[in-house]
Amino acid sequence: MKIAILPGDGIGPEIVTQAVKVLNALDEQFELETAPVGGAGYEASGHPLPEATLALAKAADAVLFGAVGDWKYDTLDRPLRPEQAILGLRKNLGLFANLRPAILYPELAGASTLKPEVVSGLDILIIRELTGDIYFGQPRGVRECPDGPFKGQREGFDTMRYAEGEIRRIAHVAFQAAQKRDKRLTSVDKANVLETFQFWKDIVTDVHKEYPDVALDHMYVDNAAMQLVRAPKKFDVIVTGNMFGDILSDAAAMLTGSIGMLPSASLDANNKGLYEPSHGSAPDIAGKGIANPLATILSAAMMLRFSLGKTEQADRIENAVKAVLAQGLRTADIYEEGTTKVGTEQMGDAVVKALA
Amino acid sequence: MKIAILPGDGIGPEIVTQAVKVLNALDEQFELETAPVGGAGYEASGHPLPEATLALAKAADAVLFGAVGDWKYDTLDRPLRPEQAILGLRKNLGLFANLRPAILYPELAGASTLKPEVVSGLDILIIRELTGDIYFGQPRGVRECPDGPFKGQREGFDTMRYAEGEIRRIAHVAFQAAQKRDKRLTSVDKANVLETFQFWKDIVTDVHKEYPDVALDHMYVDNAAMQLVRAPKKFDVIVTGNMFGDILSDAAAMLTGSIGMLPSASLDANNKGLYEPSHGSAPDIAGKGIANPLATILSAAMMLRFSLGKTEQADRIENAVKAVLAQGLRTADIYEEGTTKVGTEQMGDAVVKALA
Ligand SMILES: CC(C)[C@H](C(=O)O)[C@@H](O)C(=O)O
Ligand SMILES: CC(C)[C@H](C(=O)O)[C@@H](O)C(=O)O
Repeated sequence: MKIAILPGDGIGPEIVTQAVKVLNALDEQFELETAPVGGAGYEASGHPLPEATLALAKAADAVLFGAVGDWKYDTLDRPLRPEQAILGLRKNLGLFANLRPAILYPELAGASTLKPEVVSGLDILIIRELTGDIYFGQPRGVRECPDGPFKGQREGFDTMRYAEGEIRRIAHVAFQAAQKRDKRLTSVDKANVLETFQFWKDIVTDVHKEYPDVALDHMYVDNAAMQLVRAPKKFDVIVTGNMFGDILSDAAAMLTGSIGMLPSASLDANNKGLYEPSHGSAPDIAGKGIANPLATILSAAMMLRFSLGKTEQADRIENAVKAVLAQGLRTADIYEEGTTKVGTEQMGDAVVKALA
Repeated sequence: MKIAILPGDGIGPEIVTQAVKVLNALDEQFELETAPVGGAGYEASGHPLPEATLALAKAADAVLFGAVGDWKYDTLDRPLRPEQAILGLRKNLGLFANLRPAILYPELAGASTLKPEVVSGLDILIIRELTGDIYFGQPRGVRECPDGPFKGQREGFDTMRYAEGEIRRIAHVAFQAAQKRDKRLTSVDKANVLETFQFWKDIVTDVHKEYPDVALDHMYVDNAAMQLVRAPKKFDVIVTGNMFGDILSDAAAMLTGSIGMLPSASLDANNKGLYEPSHGSAPDIAGKGIANPLATILSAAMMLRFSLGKTEQADRIENAVKAVLAQGLRTADIYEEGTTKVGTEQMGDAVVKALA
């Protein structure tokens, strides 16, 4: 089985190195091939998603991705900026289903800015549609304002859109994920204002007929943002569009206070996927050897589970991560008094050791 | 001076009654005229925003609004649903600047789900553009998908757009508000993905030249949602578009744990405004006499300050509210052991008494 390794920028290479070390320590053989992406792709061949990198990602059975972005690329034209690589990979590989668990490990409850009773034991799954919505809708651009009080001025514009089939397939993913958990699904929309999301709500309601064992409710996005702060544990699975999912999944991740722990999966229709930590490239701490590699290691576990069918190996990694937390090892981002502060590499080594 | 009083639905009438009582207790004469809106408007004349109500709102110097919405109207066609009244008022009155303070009163620090050290002393101001963006952009609707893999299927779609002048005027409001506070403004966008918000960022950056005394920074909306949870006190003033503002202002309000305390103002170009509590119509507790009237009373204070030029009276009301909190009076939503639980009317009476 072939895995494309795309370390990217900032702390990406350091944390991916640890995840690769963990993969190599399993008693399975994987063919790993590395390629540059993001700023590193731009440096290597003038484009954040070099053709060879995209070809490798397409040919592989799964993609392990670090993170992209660095201030030094902020002044490039938008099509050349690092984040275009991740948008391009999602679109070209058809990775429409983004699964982002927000889990609070009992040992890390203190890291949250929320009161322990509000978040301890938190375990929610946000499913974000990832290849549609206003992220990719055409037309978009800057044009002359065609009407209204600002007629004739310049205006920026974008198109939000969701086709029936796009909503159906993400709804199926969400209902099936809920079936494997507490069987409760919240579909987040803004049906009181947006035509796109009235349509979304109607289609999700229709798909629900095929999953009578799952309890479905609908919530407006503004209310969802409030309820995530007020009583996040009331949620089980949340499904929403690309734009709302971008906002809510980051808010949910931050509830845990330990975004350095949270993996994510982006899947296509055949469970081929791209796996990456929920956090970014953190250029401010890159190269210092202090970044938390656990979100990337846990992303590798998700990869084994969802794309490579290696459930046992996935379990082993997840248990090893729990073990190092139980041993009191912490990188700087999750350090608390009374625990042992370790660097990126020590943390990776500890996970490898705990695999045994 | 004429004030239009629009109580609306659910707890709207009860809480507005208390605010009117407070206004009447001031040593100023206001002409108050009441009209139905939302579900009440629909009941009265078949439309959530009856013509006479709109005419009154237009003729008045300011509008005091309760809340709209009730489950029983959820099955109406969208143009007849209560929330269309508020969208119609905003658009017809040109109320483009929505000011939503998120303040945590020291006495209520315990009500927040966040740790006291993260939120105590919180005092941020969110300025949301209110008459543009994807809320009103045309075209929108359900059509046949014109291209791509879902071609020929039905799709829901909407148009996001901001014209230069629309961005400039809200940016001026925001910079001027920041000048009166800690002189720090965060403009929230999604310039890495949306053309509308790259344009927004460029225009806000340009307007900044006129306010060199204000420190401006730009933040992506997903990051803003995270930072509100992680370190909300780092913000001073936030300015953003209608859609992002809807989500972030509700999240920010919930950080305080006491959304029943938070007023809001929606202003036009001449500081005429509509004033309403940040919370909704809460039909589940309507008529029980337990709703918190303070957000509405504080909205009346904002009205005196921003639209009616009665700063002293506004101060009096705000001080009276602080006094009743200091006396330990609490409605059910903010009740804690050791304080005195009171109903809607008692709370209103206490504020009137504290005015003296
Ligand atoms: C980098 C950016 C384009 C991206 C997004 O908005 O999807 C990021 O925020 C994410 O959530 O993966
Ligand atoms: C009721 C709804 C249309 C409205 C909005 O989305 O603007 C509400 O959420 C608000 O924030 O005032």
